[in-house]
Amino acid sequence: MLPFSRVAIIGLGLIGSSVARAVRAAMPTVRLTGSDADPTVRERVRDLDLVDDVTDGAGTAVVDADLVILCVPVGAMAVVAAEIAPELSPGAIISDVGSVKAQVLSDLGAALPGVAIVPAHPVAGTENSGPDAGFATLFRNRWCILTPAEDADPVAVERVRAFWTALGSNVEVMEAKHHDIVLAVTSHLPHLIAYTIVATASDLEDVTSSEVIKYSAGGFRDFTRIAASDPTMWRDVFLTNKDAVLETLQRFSEDLSVLQRAIRWNDGDTLHALFTRSRAVRRAIIDAGQDTAAPDFGREHE
Amino acid sequence: MLPFSRVAIIGLGLIGSSVARAVRAAMPTVRLTGSDADPTVRERVRDLDLVDDVTDGAGTAVVDADLVILCVPVGAMAVVAAEIAPELSPGAIISDVGSVKAQVLSDLGAALPGVAIVPAHPVAGTENSGPDAGFATLFRNRWCILTPAEDADPVAVERVRAFWTALGSNVEVMEAKHHDIVLAVTSHLPHLIAYTIVATASDLEDVTSSEVIKYSAGGFRDFTRIAASDPTMWRDVFLTNKDAVLETLQRFSEDLSVLQRAIRWNDGDTLHALFTRSRAVRRAIIDAGQDTAAPDFGREHE
Repeated sequence: MLPFSRVAIIGLGLIGSSVARAVRAAMPTVRLTGSDADPTVRERVRDLDLVDDVTDGAGTAVVDADLVILCVPVGAMAVVAAEIAPELSPGAIISDVGSVKAQVLSDLGAALPGVAIVPAHPVAGTENSGPDAGFATLFRNRWCILTPAEDADPVAVERVRAFWTALGSNVEVMEAKHHDIVLAVTSHLPHLIAYTIVATASDLEDVTSSEVIKYSAGGFRDFTRIAASDPTMWRDVFLTNKDAVLETLQRFSEDLSVLQRAIRWNDGDTLHALFTRSRAVRRAIIDAGQDTAAPDFGREHE
Repeated sequence: MLPFSRVAIIGLGLIGSSVARAVRAAMPTVRLTGSDADPTVRERVRDLDLVDDVTDGAGTAVVDADLVILCVPVGAMAVVAAEIAPELSPGAIISDVGSVKAQVLSDLGAALPGVAIVPAHPVAGTENSGPDAGFATLFRNRWCILTPAEDADPVAVERVRAFWTALGSNVEVMEAKHHDIVLAVTSHLPHLIAYTIVATASDLEDVTSSEVIKYSAGGFRDFTRIAASDPTMWRDVFLTNKDAVLETLQRFSEDLSVLQRAIRWNDGDTLHALFTRSRAVRRAIIDAGQDTAAPDFGREHE
């Protein structure tokens, strides 16, 4: 029993194309349609044969679909929702993969009155972008968070849960606002800081970029991975989750000031105590299967 | 022609034990002695048979050695140097592996007048600690920076260069003060920020630690790797490279404020422009062989 038989994917970048591949692998009888605003992406998706039918417009892709997944930057959700609204089949469920949920829930609700909306956020990704970067196993053993409105149809929620479970994810349901606070710290703040430190390192007068690159194995290189993520997607994340990001950033800045002061006043005990706490967090993330236990992320040393 | 025939390693943690293993692999005829202040480490090194002779005191280990490498936290260099001073052979060269160089150069010079000192910093490591964490290939294709004083014996410098080249490293010579500025941005600041964000995430009231751990794949987990590094080593790094760290941290804070303001005032163009720059830095690090090109650090997705 498949939760859906005709799935439309709007936006075929890293996540959208990974959903397509994962659906093909897990539910090969599902009919897949897809669309992307970028003609070169559409062409590439045709060449890679990722979906059964690639349409030029998003509206055409959703005709007859019983699940529509919007895989576009969160700032584009409202426009795309308005575009597909007249073409949706009765009973179709609308979902998405956006990293911010309160704004998306509100945008989709406003554009699609009376439609079953079950926003979703698969907490998975890589630093690469575009349809070539996707792969079928991206969501395996990763969490997918559903953030339906309080009055959402429970059957629709269960079908979307079954869909993500079939793709290999562990599914959690949570209030959209709480999701945005949790992800502000586990995802949005880390990206903001990573982007910042790369910029800081690039702008020094006394240190050449060649030196920054050569000696990046001292720790800097770890930050550059997520700082290579899609700029448009991340611009939209920060603008649509502004309050939670600014609040978390404020706390981070306060914590950084404490360490700054400890360094200035030679307070080694404060530094040592704080540095000792963090090992347990790393251990817990590895135990939870959310990161590799191999030292140095298992990087090659040959 | 080996650059040294009898090497003493003082401190047998991650780096010291990796040097021992790498020497055994690259220069099997070299006689290796070693010492560590921690009796359980000494016992473990004996069990693992990492060196030919493990001594209780550092002084005993350096007798007859023509190269002594101090692999202790930078805050302990002065004490260890004073301890070995009376036992050094004439002509022995003293080196180290510390992450801060100006302070070490000055500490070693004060404790060992008239001795050939060639400080070194292999820019390599993992988040793990102790003699079991080391491995022979740790330094392969990584940079090792030598920071001898201006009046250092050039022959001694060349011998230490030959030693690290034999261990697989690319060797660069640089002024100690400049090293400390370069590493402040490529290593010390990233560690400070990683430690801070782990602390910030642990202290939130609205988000449980279980949520931080579950959803860490959104980006947070990348930061936890270096935040699991040895607390004593890193306390000493920040206290001995205070000026460069505080200066770099100040610049980072300014850059972060610019992004904070852009988010607050919905300035998407500033965000997008800055996010676009960072991809090139990641690309350059991969092209320089200092990180893996595999998406997501090549983490398993099965």
